[in-house]
Amino acid sequence: MENQNRSGTAGKAIRCKAAVCRNPGEPLMIEEIEVEPPKAWEIRIKILCTSLCHTDVTYWKMATTVISWWVSSVVESVGEHVEEFQEGDMVVPVFRPNCRECRDCKSQKGNACSIFGGELVPAMPRYKTRRFKGMNGETLYHFLPVSSFSQYTVVDVVNVVKISPEFPVDKACLLSCGISTGIGAAWKVADIEEGSTVAIFGLGTVGLAVAEGARLRGASKIIGVDLNQEKIEIGKKFGVTHFINPTTCGEKKISEVIKGITDGGADYCFECIGLGSLMEDAFNSSRVNWGKTVILGLEMHRTPLAINTSLLLRGRTVIGCLFGGLKPKADIPFLAQKYLHKELNLDGFITHEVGFRDINKAFDLLLEGKSLRCIIRMD
Amino acid sequence: MENQNRSGTAGKAIRCKAAVCRNPGEPLMIEEIEVEPPKAWEIRIKILCTSLCHTDVTYWKMATTVISWWVSSVVESVGEHVEEFQEGDMVVPVFRPNCRECRDCKSQKGNACSIFGGELVPAMPRYKTRRFKGMNGETLYHFLPVSSFSQYTVVDVVNVVKISPEFPVDKACLLSCGISTGIGAAWKVADIEEGSTVAIFGLGTVGLAVAEGARLRGASKIIGVDLNQEKIEIGKKFGVTHFINPTTCGEKKISEVIKGITDGGADYCFECIGLGSLMEDAFNSSRVNWGKTVILGLEMHRTPLAINTSLLLRGRTVIGCLFGGLKPKADIPFLAQKYLHKELNLDGFITHEVGFRDINKAFDLLLEGKSLRCIIRMD
Repeated sequence: MENQNRSGTAGKAIRCKAAVCRNPGEPLMIEEIEVEPPKAWEIRIKILCTSLCHTDVTYWKMATTVISWWVSSVVESVGEHVEEFQEGDMVVPVFRPNCRECRDCKSQKGNACSIFGGELVPAMPRYKTRRFKGMNGETLYHFLPVSSFSQYTVVDVVNVVKISPEFPVDKACLLSCGISTGIGAAWKVADIEEGSTVAIFGLGTVGLAVAEGARLRGASKIIGVDLNQEKIEIGKKFGVTHFINPTTCGEKKISEVIKGITDGGADYCFECIGLGSLMEDAFNSSRVNWGKTVILGLEMHRTPLAINTSLLLRGRTVIGCLFGGLKPKADIPFLAQKYLHKELNLDGFITHEVGFRDINKAFDLLLEGKSLRCIIRMD
Repeated sequence: MENQNRSGTAGKAIRCKAAVCRNPGEPLMIEEIEVEPPKAWEIRIKILCTSLCHTDVTYWKMATTVISWWVSSVVESVGEHVEEFQEGDMVVPVFRPNCRECRDCKSQKGNACSIFGGELVPAMPRYKTRRFKGMNGETLYHFLPVSSFSQYTVVDVVNVVKISPEFPVDKACLLSCGISTGIGAAWKVADIEEGSTVAIFGLGTVGLAVAEGARLRGASKIIGVDLNQEKIEIGKKFGVTHFINPTTCGEKKISEVIKGITDGGADYCFECIGLGSLMEDAFNSSRVNWGKTVILGLEMHRTPLAINTSLLLRGRTVIGCLFGGLKPKADIPFLAQKYLHKELNLDGFITHEVGFRDINKAFDLLLEGKSLRCIIRMD
């Protein structure tokens, strides 16, 4: 009875195409691979659209693997004990696990999972084994718990969220990572109130998503800080009301300019680059008494964030988050609803689209700073 | 009509005794001084009890002034436009202003005052002038906005809180500073929930007050960290359930010991010393996903707090506060009620009592680490 599906592929390995990183930093190779059937509490999904971000680039330069995790997909077959999903469901995988049973998942706070949220391994999170094989029988590494640069992939149920079948597939894959991260940081972590002032350091996709979240929350001033002057116009589409290019501040510190615009400091500051000095600028730009600085990315040189305690004591907060503090199973469908109700602007993040064969072009566009998100269609 | 009071002193300078710091770090001199009448929006108060803490010691070593601000007192006369207080009211001055009219005071958040919360000057906050004179006519400096080592002093209405006349005067002066600071940090800043785990770095008066606040909130584990082994027994009186002496941890880091006791990290960590390395220990001892580290004191060497962003990103928060985030006018009467209802333990903080003449003995007791709070009775 089990392991039946319409195409008759359930329970068997599937041969399909994948873009494999054979040599770090070199163009991905489209190859035939074999994707094993899902084990218990896993599902195999057919990828519809995928995308990539700078984290992919980082790993692409480091490893040999099937990368990325920006995905919209449809369930092809399910493993034993899977009750949450069935064949044909429209799903979005996410790198942040959400088992819904541990103390952390049951808590209202944060979005760590105490069971599956430990160290990431290049394999399935539950079994530490792999579901990809090359045609010569070699095992291929997974990347985080998703690996979406393949026509099919296997994911654990803790890393997948079901969304409405009416959701457009190209937009759906945007919910897998950075855009949710930015919106979540504004909504759940900062919990921006109407009329607040907001400063965003770095107007990449994540920073623009913070702006979009702040706009939805009714922030009165949304200040974007970026070295790229073109972000003035792009930022406006996501609610950015003031733009600061640090190279044109003259003698003034960025924090002084922001204090001038906000009458003493922004209520909420967001660092979306991962640069220690910018994190300090963000903190120094936050208001006394309730200014909150949200750190969204790892410091890229692994240097610690240095905080002046005399500023901290005056009522300031620094908080860090991954995936915008969103609990995927509950919060991704909520964001999807916001989009379907035409409140949330996802369309503006899609600047390019390529077919799977042209996947390396998507890397070029990102590296050249020309794209926000480039959608890669798998067919 | 105005400026009348029962003793006939209103509107005139009062001659009284004060303990004046003539040479930094040398015993205070009990001298006759003249205290001018209060100007508009000021009141003159008769000090009943006062006390001192390490901040007094710091300033005593630096300056010549009439110091301290731990006070219980009674209003002797009021200046023009004062409606909140009248002669005979029992009041507690506080160093943290609370005008109740500015944006910050009206907000539910924090406890800065945007009008009177700027740089502290050794004078009255509203006029930047002084109310103390020595017998040879010289002006004496104020200390913060209180200066309580005098039989009479003048304070601005923004720095005074009225409390119930039934409140015992020796306990009342404890509400002026560190004890309120600790309780406020536990209640308002951390907002500790029942069953939480708490780690407190430094079991001086402020740290013990944090423990008392955590105990009242129903924390399940309250871990005290201190180099002084005697704090084991003292801590128990304020709810400390586990004690760590860093010198007896062997190879283990303090954070590892705390993670062991709390199954992965404390929900709330408090640094009550003002030492950068201990702030880092506190942060490293906090739990992923919702661990909150509260910094209560200025880093004593003015070095910044260094935060590992990879730990921060896993949902941790660092927050700073002065006076425990308490808004004095609303929150001090609330704490006073808790004491009168026998919920809050203030008595345990009073370890010694001296008369005003023996004020230098109170300094000795503090410097020798023998006292928590030594009450100085003014009569």
